[in-house]
Amino acid sequence: MKNRVITISREFGSGGRTIGKSVATQLGIPCYDSELIHKIASESGFTENYIKDAGEYAPGGFLTSALSNRAFGPTNEDYLWKIQYKIITDLAEKESCVIVGRCADYILREKADCLRVFIHASMEYRSERIVKVYGEREESPEQRLRDKDKRRAAYHRFYTDMKWGDARNYHVCLDSGELGIEKCAEIIQQLY
Amino acid sequence: MKNRVITISREFGSGGRTIGKSVATQLGIPCYDSELIHKIASESGFTENYIKDAGEYAPGGFLTSALSNRAFGPTNEDYLWKIQYKIITDLAEKESCVIVGRCADYILREKADCLRVFIHASMEYRSERIVKVYGEREESPEQRLRDKDKRRAAYHRFYTDMKWGDARNYHVCLDSGELGIEKCAEIIQQLY
Repeated sequence: MKNRVITISREFGSGGRTIGKSVATQLGIPCYDSELIHKIASESGFTENYIKDAGEYAPGGFLTSALSNRAFGPTNEDYLWKIQYKIITDLAEKESCVIVGRCADYILREKADCLRVFIHASMEYRSERIVKVYGEREESPEQRLRDKDKRRAAYHRFYTDMKWGDARNYHVCLDSGELGIEKCAEIIQQLY
Repeated sequence: MKNRVITISREFGSGGRTIGKSVATQLGIPCYDSELIHKIASESGFTENYIKDAGEYAPGGFLTSALSNRAFGPTNEDYLWKIQYKIITDLAEKESCVIVGRCADYILREKADCLRVFIHASMEYRSERIVKVYGEREESPEQRLRDKDKRRAAYHRFYTDMKWGDARNYHVCLDSGELGIEKCAEIIQQLY
């Protein structure tokens, strides 16, 4: 593969997706995020919401249930993982692009010339941002963040055996709250 | 405090010190690294080698001995920590500067306008580099790296309660092996 891929892992609410889109636009390459979910949905037959919810965040809802389900054969999540794995590998084979989330960093680790990025920000910054972007919910923004962070970390550990958020798994990690979303996009572009 | 301080934490052999020096030269501000050890030595009465070895890496050599010593009052390391704490706080009060290592990120966390940086690199890159920079030793370079990494992480956890290498503790984390030492210096300068 000679394509160059930027993978962006991010904490919920840190603006990682916005950064990915901006980098891709500037570089004139596609950015896969919701498009990826769309592709996985159409190949798997599951709804996009199911993939977003169950698919990204939790292996079987709870770790324990995933483990016990597994005794009876592969779970839905295992099935989704395989499709996701294939779609991401194919994308990287086809063209240079930005891929947001979905463990693309791990999936492509030995397959493509990747720039692996992690975007994070403080609880305060993200709380304010998710209310602005996604609106108010019944749960407090802090509770929503804690919940999503926990699920993403668990999902990551389950399928990749990588420690979520450990700097050593990425080429560059940026605090979007302190540095600003535009500056982050600028640096990633520059490193590409 | 209105000074701006760049703190650089780094894995042994990643070139973090070289990056710090380069950034400081470009920005025309001082860089404290061995100068810091010199200052701590002259205030504490310990030799520079003692501070480098026992001081930076291990709380009492082993965690257990540190804990049991502590039952009889503060250890040498606690005494060094206090001096180090004061020297770093004073430096940040006096002028804008770059400080390499010695938990300056933690010490200044609520005291100064800091850009917190973490530099890391793969085992292969660092192994090659430490042999070039520090020469061969009896132990293999991999063994030396594993040992130093473990000690730095333990020291950090002991005095700061921060997870060493967790991206969320820093504003920017860079892989110097993949990005190159010059590029890392350039990005830090740009973010300052």
